[in-house]
Amino acid sequence: MSKEENRLHRVRVPALDKILGEAFPVLDDGFVRLVDYMGNDDSIVQAARVSYGKGTKSVSDDRGLIRYLMRHRHTTPFEMCEIKLHIRVPMDIWRQWIRHRTANVNEYSTRYSLAIDTARKTGPGEWRLQSEINKQGSEGGLDPEAGQKLTEREADTQKFLQEIYEERIELGVAREQARKDLPLSTYTEAYWKIDLHNLLHFLNLRMDHKAQFEIRVYAEAIGEKIVRKWVPLVWEAFMDYRHGAITLSRKEIDLLALLNEQRHDEAGKLLLEAGFTTRDGDLTRPTLEGRELAGKLERMGMRVPWEKD
Amino acid sequence: MSKEENRLHRVRVPALDKILGEAFPVLDDGFVRLVDYMGNDDSIVQAARVSYGKGTKSVSDDRGLIRYLMRHRHTTPFEMCEIKLHIRVPMDIWRQWIRHRTANVNEYSTRYSLAIDTARKTGPGEWRLQSEINKQGSEGGLDPEAGQKLTEREADTQKFLQEIYEERIELGVAREQARKDLPLSTYTEAYWKIDLHNLLHFLNLRMDHKAQFEIRVYAEAIGEKIVRKWVPLVWEAFMDYRHGAITLSRKEIDLLALLNEQRHDEAGKLLLEAGFTTRDGDLTRPTLEGRELAGKLERMGMRVPWEKD
Amino acid sequence: MSKEENRLHRVRVPALDKILGEAFPVLDDGFVRLVDYMGNDDSIVQAARVSYGKGTKSVSDDRGLIRYLMRHRHTTPFEMCEIKLHIRVPMDIWRQWIRHRTANVNEYSTRYSLAIDTARKTGPGEWRLQSEINKQGSEGGLDPEAGQKLTEREADTQKFLQEIYEERIELGVAREQARKDLPLSTYTEAYWKIDLHNLLHFLNLRMDHKAQFEIRVYAEAIGEKIVRKWVPLVWEAFMDYRHGAITLSRKEIDLLALLNEQRHDEAGKLLLEAGFTTRDGDLTRPTLEGRELAGKLERMGMRVPWEKD
Amino acid sequence: MSKEENRLHRVRVPALDKILGEAFPVLDDGFVRLVDYMGNDDSIVQAARVSYGKGTKSVSDDRGLIRYLMRHRHTTPFEMCEIKLHIRVPMDIWRQWIRHRTANVNEYSTRYSLAIDTARKTGPGEWRLQSEINKQGSEGGLDPEAGQKLTEREADTQKFLQEIYEERIELGVAREQARKDLPLSTYTEAYWKIDLHNLLHFLNLRMDHKAQFEIRVYAEAIGEKIVRKWVPLVWEAFMDYRHGAITLSRKEIDLLALLNEQRHDEAGKLLLEAGFTTRDGDLTRPTLEGRELAGKLERMGMRVPWEKD
Repeated sequence: MSKEENRLHRVRVPALDKILGEAFPVLDDGFVRLVDYMGNDDSIVQAARVSYGKGTKSVSDDRGLIRYLMRHRHTTPFEMCEIKLHIRVPMDIWRQWIRHRTANVNEYSTRYSLAIDTARKTGPGEWRLQSEINKQGSEGGLDPEAGQKLTEREADTQKFLQEIYEERIELGVAREQARKDLPLSTYTEAYWKIDLHNLLHFLNLRMDHKAQFEIRVYAEAIGEKIVRKWVPLVWEAFMDYRHGAITLSRKEIDLLALLNEQRHDEAGKLLLEAGFTTRDGDLTRPTLEGRELAGKLERMGMRVPWEKD
Repeated sequence: MSKEENRLHRVRVPALDKILGEAFPVLDDGFVRLVDYMGNDDSIVQAARVSYGKGTKSVSDDRGLIRYLMRHRHTTPFEMCEIKLHIRVPMDIWRQWIRHRTANVNEYSTRYSLAIDTARKTGPGEWRLQSEINKQGSEGGLDPEAGQKLTEREADTQKFLQEIYEERIELGVAREQARKDLPLSTYTEAYWKIDLHNLLHFLNLRMDHKAQFEIRVYAEAIGEKIVRKWVPLVWEAFMDYRHGAITLSRKEIDLLALLNEQRHDEAGKLLLEAGFTTRDGDLTRPTLEGRELAGKLERMGMRVPWEKD
Repeated sequence: MSKEENRLHRVRVPALDKILGEAFPVLDDGFVRLVDYMGNDDSIVQAARVSYGKGTKSVSDDRGLIRYLMRHRHTTPFEMCEIKLHIRVPMDIWRQWIRHRTANVNEYSTRYSLAIDTARKTGPGEWRLQSEINKQGSEGGLDPEAGQKLTEREADTQKFLQEIYEERIELGVAREQARKDLPLSTYTEAYWKIDLHNLLHFLNLRMDHKAQFEIRVYAEAIGEKIVRKWVPLVWEAFMDYRHGAITLSRKEIDLLALLNEQRHDEAGKLLLEAGFTTRDGDLTRPTLEGRELAGKLERMGMRVPWEKD
Repeated sequence: MSKEENRLHRVRVPALDKILGEAFPVLDDGFVRLVDYMGNDDSIVQAARVSYGKGTKSVSDDRGLIRYLMRHRHTTPFEMCEIKLHIRVPMDIWRQWIRHRTANVNEYSTRYSLAIDTARKTGPGEWRLQSEINKQGSEGGLDPEAGQKLTEREADTQKFLQEIYEERIELGVAREQARKDLPLSTYTEAYWKIDLHNLLHFLNLRMDHKAQFEIRVYAEAIGEKIVRKWVPLVWEAFMDYRHGAITLSRKEIDLLALLNEQRHDEAGKLLLEAGFTTRDGDLTRPTLEGRELAGKLERMGMRVPWEKD
C-alpha cells in the first residue's frame, strides 16, 4: 500500500454525473434512470492490480489491461463496479428481466399501493408476426389495417381491465387480490442494482437480435446511454470480445482446417457426419446448426460449401 | 475416510418415493409435484460431521445435532440436501415466488408455446377485504352477494382475454407479443430446484400469516406434504427454532428485565422512550411496535403493561 | 416519478469521505481501508418507498421506517447500499472470511507476484487455551512464560519458512509451487465489495463472542469505524434488532408462559421433556441447550428454575 | 401434465451407482469421491421441454436438444442436475477452488478437530520452473538433482511444522490458534455440492492448460471419471462447444475476412492498428494478443500472416 493509494477520493465520472436522474424514455411509457454508480474504468484496473501486481500505469496500459481481462474472461475485476438504475417497464418484460438472479431489486408493490394505471400500448404498425424458423421469435409485421384493428381492441381491453380493477378496489377488495386480472402489459417500476460483470452478461443476452424487441430496447438504452459513458474502455472491449464475437466449436474448427487446406471431400464428409448438413437424394441441405455455421462463414469472408457459386 | 463410508449407496426416503410425481392440488387449478430429491436427515448429519468431527452416532444424537445446527444457524449442512419440484401457479403468485433468487428455475415459455389457457378463478366467498392495519394484507371477506357479482365479472373477463389472445394468434401475431394482455392470474408452470436451507427460508416467509393467501397455500403444501416426510427431524427443529420462534430486541429484553424485577415506573418510562407507547394526555397507547410486543408478551404469559386488568 | 426525484445528485456521507483510504490497523500487520461506497441511510428509505409507497418524509419517519424494515427482515432495501474495502489479513482468517459467498473479491495473487513477506505474530500474552466447553473456541490464556517460549519458536518458524520460500524462488521454482509451504499465518490482501444486507450478516456472525478473536477484530473495525459512520440509523437498528437480540424457541416460549403463570411443576416437566435438563438421581442438571436458556433468562431478569436460590 | 409424467421414479445412472463412494486418488494423498447425484441427461431434456414445449422424443432428438442448449448457452436446464463430492485437497489448492462461489460447502474444521496430519509432498522430478511468458504459470522442470534437495528440505519442513503444531496442542493452545503456522500444503477435506452448469464452468476454467497443475488434476478426475459417466451427452457437447471451442473477436473476424478475400495489405494494416503486431523498423512482431491469434489460425489451418513461409 503506497502513500499515493492512501490519498483516495471517490471515483467520479463527470459524463455520468450529468445524466444522473435523467429518465431515458423506452417504449410508450417506460424509462431507464441512473440513480447511482460505484467505480469506473480505473477501478477495474485498480482491482486487477491488487491481484496481478503493479507494472506501468500509463493510459494505454490501462486500456490494454482491460482488454486482456475481457478477452480472457477474468471477470472479478469487473465486479468491482456497481450501478443502480430506476426503471419503468411492462410486467411481461420484467418477468424476463428478473430471471437474472444476480441483481438487487426493489420493485413497486401492488400489495401496498394501487397498481400503476398504464399498460404498454402497441401502435398499428408495431404488431409482429410469429417467426416460422425461430420458435421463440418474431419476423416481419402485420399489415397495418389488421394492426389498426388490434390496436383498437387492445385499447378497449386495457381500459376495461382498469375498470374491473377499480371496481374491485371500490368494493374494498384487498389490493393483493384486486390486481389479479390486470394485463401482463401493466407497467411496474423497480430499483435495480447490479455489478458491471453481471450487467454485461445481461446486456449481451438482451441486446442480442434474438431477444424480444421490448427488452432489447431497454438493454440498448442502458448500454448506449449509460454504460458507454460510464466505462468507455470496458464498453469498447465488450463490443470487440463479447458482443461482436463468435464462437467456433471443435468441429467447426476442424472443418475450417479442412476447407483451408482444400480437402473438400473430407470437409463434405465432416459436414454430414457432424450434422451441419443432411442428404436428401442428391440434395444437400443445411440443418439448423448448418445455417448458424453459414452465418459465421459469411462474416469470415468464406464460401458456404453447400451453396452453389 | 473409513471403510464404512466407502460402501456408499444413494440415500432413499421411502415415504418420498411413494409420492414421487404425485400432483398435490393447490388453488383451483394449481399443483405441487415432487420430481426428485437429494439427501435426507442423515445427509445433514454426515456433512456436519465432516466439519465438526465424529463422536457417537446413535439416533438420539442425530436429532440433537440437527437441532443444534438449526438453533445456532449453522446453515451449510442444510444446503447439502436438494429438492426439485414441478409447480403450476398463477403468474401473479409466481412473481412473488421468483424473488427468491437462490433457486434453479425452468419456467414454461409463452414465447415458445401457447399460453396455458386457464387462469385462477375466485369463488364468491373467496374475495378478501383490504386490511386497514396491514397495508399489504387482507382481512375478512366481502359479502357473498357482492362476491357472486365479482366472480361472474371475473369469469367474463378471463374468457374475453382468452379470446383476445386467440384472435391475435390466429392473425399470426408472434406469441411473445400476443400474450401481453393476458391477465396476471394466468397459470404458468415451472421446474423449481432449491437446497433445503434456502427452501426453509422460503417456507418461513411464505407460511407466515402475513404472506398472501395464494402463496401461503403453496408453501403449506410443500412443507406439510413433502418436506415433513423428507426430513422429519429437520422439520421438527424448523418448527421449534424458526417458524414457531420469536425474536426479542435489546430493548424488549431490557423491558422484560424491568418488568420481572417489578420496576414498573422504569418500565413505563422505557416503553415510552423506546417508542412502544405514546402518550396522548393521560392516555397511553401502543404504537405498531407496541402491538407487536403485546403479541409476544401474551405468548409468554405476561401482562401487557398498558392494558387495564 | 416526481420532478424532485429528477434532480438527483450522488449520495455523499461527509463522515465517510474523511476516512476514505485511511488504513485502520488490525492485528500486528493487518488493516481495513474504505475504498468506495454507494448509498447511505436515505438510499434505503428511497428504495423502500419504491416498494411501499410514499407517505410523509420527516427525519423521524426515516428512522422509524429503517427500524421497521430491520425488525421485519425486509432485507432488499439494505441491498441497495454497497461498500468496497481493501483489507490485509492472515490467510487462515481469510479462509473463514471467504466463506461468505455473496461478496465480490479480488485477492492478491501469489501465482503472479511474490508472497507478502510478513506473517501474523503472536505476543507472549496472546496465546489462548482450548475451551473445554466450546469445542471450537478458546478460553483463558497460556501462562506468559510458556507463551514467551512459543512466541520465540513462532518467530524462528516464520523466518525459516520465508527462507525456504526464497530458496525455491532463487532456484527458479514457479511462484505457484514455491508458496506451498508458507504458513497459514502469511498475510494476504484483497479488495472486498459487498452490499449492506450481506455485510450486516457477516458482522453479526463475526462480531459474535463465539467468533475467533482474529476475525472478530476485523469485524469490529469494519462495524465501529466504518459502518457506524456510513449508515448511523441502520447501525442503531442492527444493534437493537439483530446483534443485541435473542431468539426464543417455541418450547422456550411455552416454558416462560408456565413460569409466568406459576405452574412450576409443569415447567419442570417441560424442562426435562424438551431436553433443557437431565435427571441424575435427585440431581437436575442443565444440558447444553439448558445453559443457553439460562443465559437468556438472566438477561430477562428471571430466575433459572433449576438453580438454588 | 400427462399421465406418463405422473408415474415418476427417481433418475438412476447405473454407471455412477457403481462408483458411488469410490475414492479416485489425486496427487500424493488427495482424492475425489462421488457422494450423491440428482438427475442425468434426461433431466435436462425434461426441464428444457417444460420451457420449450414437447415435440418428438427419440434418443437422437435428446442429443440434438442438449447440443442446441449447450451451443446457445441456454444454461438453466443444466442447473437441474446436481452433484455432491467428497474431496481431499491441499489448502493452497482449496483456496483457488473455493473462489467458485456457487457451490455448497462443508469443510473440515481445524477449530473443532485436530488438523489432518499430512501435507502435499513434491517428488524430485515434480518441481516446475517459473514461466517467463505467463506470469502466473510454470514451464519445464527443475533439474532432478536440485529437485532432490528441495524435496528433502520440504520433508524436513513439513515434519518440523507438524511438531510445532503438536507442541502447541500439548501445551493446551486452542486449535484455532495452534494451526496458524501449518503450511498451505496441509490437506483439508470438504463436501462440495454444485449444479451441473456451474460445475462445467469450473471444469472449463480448471481443466484449461493455464490452470495450476495441482487443481487441473482434480478437475480432470472429476470430469473424466465422474461427469463423463454421469451425463455422457452433456459431456460430449461440452467438449465440442465449450472446452474445445475458440472465440473470435470482432477484429479477428474482420481480419479473417480480409485474409480470405486476399486483401493482404489491408490485413497487415489491421493487424498493426488493432494491436496484434508491432513494428520495429522493418521487423513485424506479434504482441501477446497476436500470439493468441496465431494459435487460433493454426488450429484453423491458416497461415500466420507475419510468419515467413
